[in-house]
Amino acid sequence: MRNLRMVLEYDGTAYHGWQRQTNGLSIQQVLEEKIAVMTGEAVKVIGSGRTDAGVHALGQVAHFKTASTIPDIRFLNGINSLLPRDIAVKALREVDPSFHARYDAKSKVYLYQVVNGSVRPVLLRQYAWFVPGPLDPEKIREAAVYFMGTHDFSSFCSTHSDAPDHIRTITDIRIEAGSHGLIKIEMEADGFLRHMVRGIVGTLIEVGRGKRFVSDMQAIIHEKDRRHGGMTAPPHGLFLKEVIY
Amino acid sequence: MRNLRMVLEYDGTAYHGWQRQTNGLSIQQVLEEKIAVMTGEAVKVIGSGRTDAGVHALGQVAHFKTASTIPDIRFLNGINSLLPRDIAVKALREVDPSFHARYDAKSKVYLYQVVNGSVRPVLLRQYAWFVPGPLDPEKIREAAVYFMGTHDFSSFCSTHSDAPDHIRTITDIRIEAGSHGLIKIEMEADGFLRHMVRGIVGTLIEVGRGKRFVSDMQAIIHEKDRRHGGMTAPPHGLFLKEVIY
Repeated sequence: MRNLRMVLEYDGTAYHGWQRQTNGLSIQQVLEEKIAVMTGEAVKVIGSGRTDAGVHALGQVAHFKTASTIPDIRFLNGINSLLPRDIAVKALREVDPSFHARYDAKSKVYLYQVVNGSVRPVLLRQYAWFVPGPLDPEKIREAAVYFMGTHDFSSFCSTHSDAPDHIRTITDIRIEAGSHGLIKIEMEADGFLRHMVRGIVGTLIEVGRGKRFVSDMQAIIHEKDRRHGGMTAPPHGLFLKEVIY
Repeated sequence: MRNLRMVLEYDGTAYHGWQRQTNGLSIQQVLEEKIAVMTGEAVKVIGSGRTDAGVHALGQVAHFKTASTIPDIRFLNGINSLLPRDIAVKALREVDPSFHARYDAKSKVYLYQVVNGSVRPVLLRQYAWFVPGPLDPEKIREAAVYFMGTHDFSSFCSTHSDAPDHIRTITDIRIEAGSHGLIKIEMEADGFLRHMVRGIVGTLIEVGRGKRFVSDMQAIIHEKDRRHGGMTAPPHGLFLKEVIY
């Protein structure tokens, strides 16, 4: 069996997330079905991790085992011609049989887009969270510093997280305030808990809006209780940007 | 009667262009219908110019006359709550009764987005033209210089143009090659003929792909014949960015 590694871009708008489910179409299911068309095999595609319903990916990584001998470049072009327009395989290559997209991931980078302004965005309506009213990017930047490093992130992740512990290490957070009210929040960590980026972003935005204070961040983190963190930002502003191995 | 000036953002994907037509829904029609809901009047909305089916706008400008006394900010919020998610009024204010969105326009800025690479883009699939294979942005930049200034643009505009003459002045063309194969072509002119930006972009891309030469540009312009210009780039990469008064 060959082990094939894919880098994926997808628009999560129309899907019930990465993970195969009974109640709606997932990215994983679409990929498995199209690979089955090419190889005639019932393959299992394993991603670096789940993305929630409505969340996008610029660089999700996944692998699958196949007996197919189709050359990589032909496999890439073939699968892209079968996939719908909102999913694409950016790269595909054979890797060592031991490579595992989930277990081998060293860190992940997520991007969250916010649009601040008085009028809802049109062209970014499915790719950014619209936050109307005053919003101070400088305050967001100051608050973000508190999330850097190793913490128990229970105040920000879903209470339905099934991870054995909630301790993760954020190695980078960048806030970039661009033109037309677009604010990009990018963070890298050794791993992310369910809804963790969205919980942190929701909290940061509450600081930017003056509803919470920079000086509260440390206490909120220390509480390790989801009821103390800010709101969960909506999924459509979130992108899995990169998985690092 | 008051004269109201609007700045509009829209996603042209679902519309048959700006101009009201019998065979499909236009941006103009949607705006007129929603304004009618607010004012009870059968208003006529006059844009700075048409945009083709599938073309987007970041800053289309339009005006209309109304007897309504609804304050500007309430009108803005009201109309945006009535409009579909792919159209928004970014700004609205009362202007001098003599202001005319089309006749008073001094220049317009259009943006065209191209994605070059080996795999079709997903997140920009409705906002950029995918050009696979080798493409040299430097050649595009060199060729673009020839379009600067005052020329007869008959080699690039639609043969169905109903303009009395095809002489226009391009005051600026910028080519920006960014990450992930995204190339932005921006141009400003005192006016644009039907399909003119798309004809110029199609020609520039043929130069970038090595199918035409930079040294051919002058002759193509001088021919003043559509059969000599390059292909018409597809509408979905095009944005009316700004109208200058």
